[in-house]
Amino acid sequence: MLTLYHAPNSRSSRIVTLLMALDALDRVDIRLTDIPRQDGSGARDPNNPHPEGKVPLLVTEEGEMIRESNAILLYLTDRFPSDLAPEVGAPGRGAYLSWLFWYGNVLEPVYMHRLAGLSHPVLSASFRGMPEAVAYLAAGLDGWAFLLGDRNSVADLLIASPFLWFPEATPDVPAIRDWVARCAAQPCIARSMEFDARSAEEMGLAPA
Amino acid sequence: MLTLYHAPNSRSSRIVTLLMALDALDRVDIRLTDIPRQDGSGARDPNNPHPEGKVPLLVTEEGEMIRESNAILLYLTDRFPSDLAPEVGAPGRGAYLSWLFWYGNVLEPVYMHRLAGLSHPVLSASFRGMPEAVAYLAAGLDGWAFLLGDRNSVADLLIASPFLWFPEATPDVPAIRDWVARCAAQPCIARSMEFDARSAEEMGLAPA
Repeated sequence: MLTLYHAPNSRSSRIVTLLMALDALDRVDIRLTDIPRQDGSGARDPNNPHPEGKVPLLVTEEGEMIRESNAILLYLTDRFPSDLAPEVGAPGRGAYLSWLFWYGNVLEPVYMHRLAGLSHPVLSASFRGMPEAVAYLAAGLDGWAFLLGDRNSVADLLIASPFLWFPEATPDVPAIRDWVARCAAQPCIARSMEFDARSAEEMGLAPA
Repeated sequence: MLTLYHAPNSRSSRIVTLLMALDALDRVDIRLTDIPRQDGSGARDPNNPHPEGKVPLLVTEEGEMIRESNAILLYLTDRFPSDLAPEVGAPGRGAYLSWLFWYGNVLEPVYMHRLAGLSHPVLSASFRGMPEAVAYLAAGLDGWAFLLGDRNSVADLLIASPFLWFPEATPDVPAIRDWVARCAAQPCIARSMEFDARSAEEMGLAPA
């Protein structure tokens, strides 16, 4: 059985959301894990085998460690095929991969650069900025309900995640606001939040 | 046939290197493309359909656009199976995905932050810094010739690329220096550089 190291209300919550959407929660052994939090609470968990103590970490039956949220999402959608993600060779596979990588290559860096109030020619040349990322996202949604077309996919789950976590960061673009609302309304989101609330209580953590 | 928009001596050169390694250059229509360069030369090519005029861009027979270097590398290794990358379900697939995503999620941002001389608590919390990335890479190579074991893979091609491009940026860690040298010695690297030199001449560009 796969093992997932998960900290409630953290980056790894997206993996739980996917498992909820795939109805595959019983196919993964979820180990609740402590991590250092931005507010100074929490600490590295010596039982988490991730070399930096981070989450998520997925470990296969053979002991192979899979790190990085977008890598884990892709690994799981390939392992448990569903209508949430195009398989290798299927239409939309290239667009699916493009969005998963774009999240880490572009969206997270420009989001963090804006959060930190940083600007620098090297950053602009390599990543551009939030306005370009927002324009790119809006262009990708053009006329579509979701990033890969008329159906919710794991690309939406990942790319909407910063805006579900910090709704005030949602770009003020009607097509993006409407898409974030559609993503937030997926039943797996509420189920994942309930799972995290129960898990946090079990661990004696403060509510999110 | 697939179409690749490629600018010589740019990020898209890694895609040409992969095609050389796969011996698949004749399976992709390579369109030489101009891009704005850091030194002020070059300009956006109106024939490049990438919404931001960037390279690489891969377009499928059905017109699907695949962006982001790591997404294109993964798409191509899934499309043209070889011993350069584990397929879905094969041992090492999870590690392969982890390295491809780690490149964009961590290595490029921390490399650029160092290049720009930037430090900020938000950056440290999200991406950590170059010392942590170097330690991570060294740990991944521990006792192995290449990132996935004893055989060169596309994970090596991607993650060694900044150090092949800027050798002076290679971390001063013997295991990493030796690995970069092994990566640089792959025949596909020299063949790709020759291809780019010929292409640059054809386009009337200054040598790299």
